[in-house]
Amino acid sequence: MMNIILKHRTIRKYKSDEIPEKSLKQIIEAGTHASTTGNMQVYSIIISKDKSIKEKLWEAHFKQNMVLQAPIILTFCADFNRFVKWCNHRKASPGYDNFLSFFTAAIDALLVAQNVALAAETNGLGICYLGTTTYNAHKIIEILKLPKGVVPVTTLVMGYSDETPGLTDRLPLEAIIHNDVYQDYSPETIDSIYKERENSGFTKELLKINNKETLAQIFTEIRYTKKDNIMFSNKFLEAIKDQGFMNNEM
Amino acid sequence: MMNIILKHRTIRKYKSDEIPEKSLKQIIEAGTHASTTGNMQVYSIIISKDKSIKEKLWEAHFKQNMVLQAPIILTFCADFNRFVKWCNHRKASPGYDNFLSFFTAAIDALLVAQNVALAAETNGLGICYLGTTTYNAHKIIEILKLPKGVVPVTTLVMGYSDETPGLTDRLPLEAIIHNDVYQDYSPETIDSIYKERENSGFTKELLKINNKETLAQIFTEIRYTKKDNIMFSNKFLEAIKDQGFMNNEM
Repeated sequence: MMNIILKHRTIRKYKSDEIPEKSLKQIIEAGTHASTTGNMQVYSIIISKDKSIKEKLWEAHFKQNMVLQAPIILTFCADFNRFVKWCNHRKASPGYDNFLSFFTAAIDALLVAQNVALAAETNGLGICYLGTTTYNAHKIIEILKLPKGVVPVTTLVMGYSDETPGLTDRLPLEAIIHNDVYQDYSPETIDSIYKERENSGFTKELLKINNKETLAQIFTEIRYTKKDNIMFSNKFLEAIKDQGFMNNEM
Repeated sequence: MMNIILKHRTIRKYKSDEIPEKSLKQIIEAGTHASTTGNMQVYSIIISKDKSIKEKLWEAHFKQNMVLQAPIILTFCADFNRFVKWCNHRKASPGYDNFLSFFTAAIDALLVAQNVALAAETNGLGICYLGTTTYNAHKIIEILKLPKGVVPVTTLVMGYSDETPGLTDRLPLEAIIHNDVYQDYSPETIDSIYKERENSGFTKELLKINNKETLAQIFTEIRYTKKDNIMFSNKFLEAIKDQGFMNNEM
């Protein structure tokens, strides 16, 4: 188990081999064993294999090739639709059309997704998370015909790996843990925790290719710009509202 | 690995035994191997052992006894503070004070939390997620001295179990998966997927204790009421804004 967790690598190239139905079922079943708030299970998993759906998802995910390559795309959704329908059908008045309920359901969906990712890796499969899910949530809602009460929060592509990438580097453990209360970072601490990453051959190569002075500039000026972040923030908040999760007044 | 995932039980009673420092380090280390958006690692883990901090957290988590019982409380935070400090220190202008960035960091924190939960269970420990983290985020921010750019999104209590609960029941797999696109639920489907849960001895006992006609009413009228959800939605949105994640205008 520790071994599976420690060996995790993101896979971006996939063979066309299908995933046996039995394995897929076991993997999704493992997902459902994750903790869920009040045992409400307020999430859904959309399993997309159909070529035309995958092509549409590929566009929504900025045409990343692995979306077409991998045999299966799993979209994890915060889902209060099922629960609300149940309440309405059982003489109960649901009050789950607010931001807290959205976030509660998003937590459910994300814990399930990580269980599914690890179960897939245990079964010899490769996975990749698609952060683009929240960027284009409104498009994915349309493609997957998600009703009110349902918002996609993350996506896993899954299949047999056609590459053997190395482990991704991580900041030293001290960088991300705090004892008892938060200890804020001094400039010296920032220097020390980012040192190894900044001095790697991979970073030097990146700086050369992108013609930037610092690795941080590659993030702020190319990969995750303020302009894009604000645009996608507004689109995502609009999608959350459109799906009925922003009725925060009594 | 599958065995660890399938055996997961939430533990609400803990022995006072300490967790060996070496085990804790391995467990947290396993957390850092989770996928993270763009390898930014925009999360932090606050490890609270100190009695007075634990007492304050216990109050913020509605005085659930396990918060005092368990030797360790881990608060998982969406954290752009460290990354932004790094950018500012490296001639890069960060644009991460918006909702998308908060949600991206929350995803990072939640995937890490689930890795930590499974790694803990692999090491013979019990865990329990505290959904109350988002309810009282503003109080937890104060207790743990979280600076701008940091919002707590979930909490794990962790320790050696002092009980042996059974597995929690789950809806049938068909209830939570959809093929290719979302298939909405008919009243007949709702009846069928909730049937087993509604007819269990546990549910019948709950209805009797709470003097309610349906299980759904226990959720809407007692456990997760509209009034509470709206109050906590507004508090949580305010905390996200106060921590500097709602600057969504150019």
